[in-house]
Amino acid sequence: MTAWRLDHGREQRIGLVEAVYGPGKSTEQCASIVAELLAEGGHGPVLLTRATPEQIATACARNPGGRVIGRTVTWRPARARAGAVAVLTAGTADLPVADECVATLRAYGYAPTLVTDIGVAGLHRFLDHQEALASVDAVVVVAGMEGALASIVGGAIAAPIVAVPTSVGYGSSFEGITALLAMLASCAQGVSVVGIDNGFGAACAVVRLLHRIERARA
Amino acid sequence: MTAWRLDHGREQRIGLVEAVYGPGKSTEQCASIVAELLAEGGHGPVLLTRATPEQIATACARNPGGRVIGRTVTWRPARARAGAVAVLTAGTADLPVADECVATLRAYGYAPTLVTDIGVAGLHRFLDHQEALASVDAVVVVAGMEGALASIVGGAIAAPIVAVPTSVGYGSSFEGITALLAMLASCAQGVSVVGIDNGFGAACAVVRLLHRIERARA
Amino acid sequence: MTAWRLDHGREQRIGLVEAVYGPGKSTEQCASIVAELLAEGGHGPVLLTRATPEQIATACARNPGGRVIGRTVTWRPARARAGAVAVLTAGTADLPVADECVATLRAYGYAPTLVTDIGVAGLHRFLDHQEALASVDAVVVVAGMEGALASIVGGAIAAPIVAVPTSVGYGSSFEGITALLAMLASCAQGVSVVGIDNGFGAACAVVRLLHRIERARA
Amino acid sequence: MTAWRLDHGREQRIGLVEAVYGPGKSTEQCASIVAELLAEGGHGPVLLTRATPEQIATACARNPGGRVIGRTVTWRPARARAGAVAVLTAGTADLPVADECVATLRAYGYAPTLVTDIGVAGLHRFLDHQEALASVDAVVVVAGMEGALASIVGGAIAAPIVAVPTSVGYGSSFEGITALLAMLASCAQGVSVVGIDNGFGAACAVVRLLHRIERARA
Amino acid sequence: MTAWRLDHGREQRIGLVEAVYGPGKSTEQCASIVAELLAEGGHGPVLLTRATPEQIATACARNPGGRVIGRTVTWRPARARAGAVAVLTAGTADLPVADECVATLRAYGYAPTLVTDIGVAGLHRFLDHQEALASVDAVVVVAGMEGALASIVGGAIAAPIVAVPTSVGYGSSFEGITALLAMLASCAQGVSVVGIDNGFGAACAVVRLLHRIERARA
Amino acid sequence: MTAWRLDHGREQRIGLVEAVYGPGKSTEQCASIVAELLAEGGHGPVLLTRATPEQIATACARNPGGRVIGRTVTWRPARARAGAVAVLTAGTADLPVADECVATLRAYGYAPTLVTDIGVAGLHRFLDHQEALASVDAVVVVAGMEGALASIVGGAIAAPIVAVPTSVGYGSSFEGITALLAMLASCAQGVSVVGIDNGFGAACAVVRLLHRIERARA
Amino acid sequence: MTAWRLDHGREQRIGLVEAVYGPGKSTEQCASIVAELLAEGGHGPVLLTRATPEQIATACARNPGGRVIGRTVTWRPARARAGAVAVLTAGTADLPVADECVATLRAYGYAPTLVTDIGVAGLHRFLDHQEALASVDAVVVVAGMEGALASIVGGAIAAPIVAVPTSVGYGSSFEGITALLAMLASCAQGVSVVGIDNGFGAACAVVRLLHRIERARA
Amino acid sequence: MTAWRLDHGREQRIGLVEAVYGPGKSTEQCASIVAELLAEGGHGPVLLTRATPEQIATACARNPGGRVIGRTVTWRPARARAGAVAVLTAGTADLPVADECVATLRAYGYAPTLVTDIGVAGLHRFLDHQEALASVDAVVVVAGMEGALASIVGGAIAAPIVAVPTSVGYGSSFEGITALLAMLASCAQGVSVVGIDNGFGAACAVVRLLHRIERARA
Repeated sequence: MTAWRLDHGREQRIGLVEAVYGPGKSTEQCASIVAELLAEGGHGPVLLTRATPEQIATACARNPGGRVIGRTVTWRPARARAGAVAVLTAGTADLPVADECVATLRAYGYAPTLVTDIGVAGLHRFLDHQEALASVDAVVVVAGMEGALASIVGGAIAAPIVAVPTSVGYGSSFEGITALLAMLASCAQGVSVVGIDNGFGAACAVVRLLHRIERARA
Repeated sequence: MTAWRLDHGREQRIGLVEAVYGPGKSTEQCASIVAELLAEGGHGPVLLTRATPEQIATACARNPGGRVIGRTVTWRPARARAGAVAVLTAGTADLPVADECVATLRAYGYAPTLVTDIGVAGLHRFLDHQEALASVDAVVVVAGMEGALASIVGGAIAAPIVAVPTSVGYGSSFEGITALLAMLASCAQGVSVVGIDNGFGAACAVVRLLHRIERARA
Repeated sequence: MTAWRLDHGREQRIGLVEAVYGPGKSTEQCASIVAELLAEGGHGPVLLTRATPEQIATACARNPGGRVIGRTVTWRPARARAGAVAVLTAGTADLPVADECVATLRAYGYAPTLVTDIGVAGLHRFLDHQEALASVDAVVVVAGMEGALASIVGGAIAAPIVAVPTSVGYGSSFEGITALLAMLASCAQGVSVVGIDNGFGAACAVVRLLHRIERARA
Repeated sequence: MTAWRLDHGREQRIGLVEAVYGPGKSTEQCASIVAELLAEGGHGPVLLTRATPEQIATACARNPGGRVIGRTVTWRPARARAGAVAVLTAGTADLPVADECVATLRAYGYAPTLVTDIGVAGLHRFLDHQEALASVDAVVVVAGMEGALASIVGGAIAAPIVAVPTSVGYGSSFEGITALLAMLASCAQGVSVVGIDNGFGAACAVVRLLHRIERARA
Repeated sequence: MTAWRLDHGREQRIGLVEAVYGPGKSTEQCASIVAELLAEGGHGPVLLTRATPEQIATACARNPGGRVIGRTVTWRPARARAGAVAVLTAGTADLPVADECVATLRAYGYAPTLVTDIGVAGLHRFLDHQEALASVDAVVVVAGMEGALASIVGGAIAAPIVAVPTSVGYGSSFEGITALLAMLASCAQGVSVVGIDNGFGAACAVVRLLHRIERARA
Repeated sequence: MTAWRLDHGREQRIGLVEAVYGPGKSTEQCASIVAELLAEGGHGPVLLTRATPEQIATACARNPGGRVIGRTVTWRPARARAGAVAVLTAGTADLPVADECVATLRAYGYAPTLVTDIGVAGLHRFLDHQEALASVDAVVVVAGMEGALASIVGGAIAAPIVAVPTSVGYGSSFEGITALLAMLASCAQGVSVVGIDNGFGAACAVVRLLHRIERARA
Repeated sequence: MTAWRLDHGREQRIGLVEAVYGPGKSTEQCASIVAELLAEGGHGPVLLTRATPEQIATACARNPGGRVIGRTVTWRPARARAGAVAVLTAGTADLPVADECVATLRAYGYAPTLVTDIGVAGLHRFLDHQEALASVDAVVVVAGMEGALASIVGGAIAAPIVAVPTSVGYGSSFEGITALLAMLASCAQGVSVVGIDNGFGAACAVVRLLHRIERARA
Repeated sequence: MTAWRLDHGREQRIGLVEAVYGPGKSTEQCASIVAELLAEGGHGPVLLTRATPEQIATACARNPGGRVIGRTVTWRPARARAGAVAVLTAGTADLPVADECVATLRAYGYAPTLVTDIGVAGLHRFLDHQEALASVDAVVVVAGMEGALASIVGGAIAAPIVAVPTSVGYGSSFEGITALLAMLASCAQGVSVVGIDNGFGAACAVVRLLHRIERARA
């Protein structure tokens, strides 16, 4: 008996596939679930997230063609699709979360622009990008500590914005809770938020709306 | 000297106007700020939110043409725009939050469909609407208590979903904190969340993406 | 002097035996307490819970006949008893908690049905089992993240339901607190809850009621 | 248009009816929903819970035959059914929560025994009832402050036990959170818990199991 | 017997006087303590804070010469002293807290500049003042919601900055806790923080440093 | 330069000595501070608490005559003094905290009675000791999980009671927070509480009162 | 039927009587329970705590001889007993809690010394009393805000110390939670703590130990 | 591509440089960023904070001239500047946080006085330094547990005070949260606070004000 029950109809239903979440699974389980998903015959990307180096090594050995970005591996990416997304980070330490977001977006066929290290303590770093950001279809803001970048971006540009609080910080960051609350309480209207460090979730939220934009373009 | 400083360029910058938030303002202040915003000369809707009956009465007397929905008043609504949005509520008590969301969306020219009382304790109530919801451009899910409706909707349809936890509930709802955390931790991927009872914020997030969809249609 | 004082009368009093909880006890202590309980002479099962591999190895070597399920070991199980129980899990990662529940139920003579991976993001997975679950005597729902499965089950079937929040999840799961609060605030009435990851406690709650049902059948 | 959507099939599905929860509803709404439920034609009890005196007066005037216990009103009670339940309270101040539980149980046809004021600071008060409680089908323990009564009862009798933390207490009771956590962490195994002050929910959990016991007797 | 024991030596010791905090004191007590402090003979200002209209009326009637700003009354202000302070607020609703700060600073002889409504959702509002703020001796930042203004100011100007979180906001502001945590976790280095809504405390922190600057000028 | 500054007058002032708290100190520091305290010339016991095996080994090698109980080492104990104290634990896992308490009491010359494993799930275990406990001078109750033993003891005997919550437990024990809150909210009046796992602090509170009782006997 | 069940044997068992806690009881109930307690025939004091003016008026009219201190009323006080207790408060606003403590101690026959307004911001206020406090049998420290007075007293005098955190304060006092945590974490060893605002509980803890001291004197 | 984007203009803007925060960066990254900062050509100090021994070794090997204090390394310190600062610690375990503060102040050219181990349990230890502290320009108070030293210092001296809560303590210290809340709620007015363990931030706050004092002296 296998211990898992895959939701094979999910992509058809919501346009998003079930990802393989590494923590709590054995190296063997990760590789096998990926294999089963790939064996289905070509629909939708396959993702392994938050994987350890051992999980990555085994999964890639068993299933050729995986692309590794940080702790995420993707197989069978979607064809390239139109849709301009920017992923912004406040600091260097937010990069692993941004990587998970970027890897997921690429798996769905998008080519996100990654803009790093534009935290609000040096505001000009964001202002330099403001004009370029004005026309994108969606923005993901990845920030820890007090998460103020989400408010700045939300007050400056018109695109849909998904904010991702990260567990980066110290002093009174409380593993991302401070950034999470701050982003939810943002004075910039229309910023929506996903869970702490959830780069994957933010990418999925963006894919939902890019699919709708693509439908509109058609 | 007036105690407020309006951000007149906001609509041009982000497509959303500054709303007048009632709590903490005098009846007189509310009416005056609305008047000043209307006097600017025709750009964008004017909103007064979370207003008391007294604030509503005074603001409407001073500024004719206001439309009242629950505790929200709107003036000078945008022209009707294409964009299919559904606002779903789990229970009757979530309605005031949904009303704020609906009023805001209408102010921006959209005609949201309100579907009430489809909480997950009677799952067929949602399943009856699932097919109709499959094609909308965006969904707002308004729910208190344990907020499970967001997960059900998120797993069932492809549209972008913004979840609004409400302070409705008892026992261990903790004024909306339980629903907030549950929506953020949803097992349905790509659901993003705004603050507790923030129907206005959810509407703004939806307006951002409907504007992008409209641009794509053009 | 031994450092423990066993409550030998407990089974006669409440129908449930004192279990040996592994954490904080030495490998030697675990094995000795199990031996002392077995030496009492044949009344009631003996359980060792949350044991490490070392604790399990030593306890089993010293006390033959132990049955290992996950981190639980049971000796001297009760005779087979009537009573239909289902243990449901939302995801693969909830399995260790479900295993503790299943092992405890088996020690008391029951043969629970384990249904895994029916999380609400793919609702059909639960709906496929709904009819079969309609007639059971009790259901244990094991779920992490936002714990919405408890609400779905509670609204769909008539059996007594004990919900077990698990520490599975990320983002804003907060080690099971989100699922705990959500299950307590469930909109489906009559769902009762035990502590986080407490598969043992859920099984004990079920045993209490199955004993009453058995008495009624007699 | 009515703002509510009743779940008429619920009783057939789970043996429990949807109750009318007073807070957040107008006096008029409460009376109308009760009337609609009564008009369905004779299946199952109708409950109005957490009602204000005004809501009670209007609902009873419009819908004759209501029975008032504390803040709960019930109409069309089920026929008397077998099933021995005891509702225990630690202190006088827990009585309103116990009343909600008792009223709900009566609506479903049960005749619970109410035992009040047996808090653990005077242990003999519980010990005097221990023998009589040994044979009941289920026990509801209602307690605030530190909620220790649940542990005492859980360690002393074999019946299924549902614990209800109340918001009674001061000092560090934190509106029931202390009792809630303490009941969930009870050292007495097999005690399950519902939300703070949720006497209705505890009654529903008990009804679920009494229905199963009744089925076994048949 | 009087119920209070004034700390008459405080001003000599730390340069700051004991203020009369209104809440929990009777109207009569407030007026009497103010009178006793004024009777001491001319050293240092006298402050009554968080006073109700009744407390203010009685205290002013009994003790002529009081100056009322919001809920603060001051008597016997210090002579005018050099020291450039700016008090910034993010929104209109932060004004009562800023008023308490301004009133306290004035009582000590300073003439703070109040700049209101420069929240980060419209960044130009702050940028317009950045140059003028570059040369002040100290800045107080008063902000609720997510408190991001503190980070923006901290990253932009060199002056000492004391941040005051306010209980203004909704959604996930949690009565100021979000702003408090966010200010403490600010990515802009060297911002220090006082308690929620504590405009008085921020003013006192500033007075301590202006006294040191004045000593340096001497 | 040494990094520490001992409070040599403390015993004369309050009857209690400064203990050497192991965590955060190097093995070398622990041994040196103990040596310095012993070198003072014979007044009062010397204690090293929460020490690692390495800290214990080095401190004992350098300073002969240390007595080790669990993670506490004591030197130069006070002469035997009258004063009957009982230290009670709810479970086996509470023993390390009880040991710290016992070791500290012995260092001050008392001979506490340790009664283990009398948790309330088997109430007779406590009732068997109730009569013997009626005459002691003070009781320390050490309990984790829901900490109900403190309430039972507080309602049953007249002695002063100091409750120590422990970090023992799972499910919803939250590292001792549940027991801490429950003990503070105890329905048994006159129970006072120290911090989580603080067996040392409880012993010190007891020493303070035993000194007063001794003075009364004199 | 009366809704309460008095614990008449409590005083004989633990030396303390059950008090009548006002909140949640009707004016009538308070007066009746007091009458019933007085009718028992002369053993032990009778206390009504946290009473409203209406509860006090009715209870005193029905039961002559009551002594009112703040919100506490006591009848039939114990004979005067030896035992020196001091009750210290940090600020004026802590007085109601201190009053409850003083009234309770007086009901048991003690004559506590009340020392008010010696908060640590003016340290000399405490230092002036240090010598007089050195010889008392017990000290109760009542303080809100950051509760630092408990640490100062604990480090300065040898008597047993019971600390009572109060809900007095603002900014980040969080209704007494800050003082509660700070007192529990006090660096002064041997300070024990009761719940927030629990002056009654602190008095009971002190009575327990004064009874033991009295026994020692005998 | 480098993953970081340095804010080279920060020192000119706010007088403070961007520090290299070790956690989450590779040993290689730390060394490279330090090198890049040093290569800029001589403006302002370079700091590496919270570094591991490996990060320190590599960074120092690659970049000669680093000065190591605890876990902080500084290069290219500013010229010696006037400005009297004292850094006070309550206990030995607070020293690492004080070291970070001292190292940062030295990097900016100041020569802080470090006074250790003057916790309030032995008040004379602080009183011995009170006179000397009366004339300094600023004080940093570093304390864990209940953080009471901040209140004592704040009530005793006139200098600006920045309080740093530390994660030192046990029982109910909650990793510094207790000290953080207590310092924010201090009854001594005008004490401002930085995040838990944030010695760097406290130093930066002090540098801001010393720069203003220096400007005043000029």
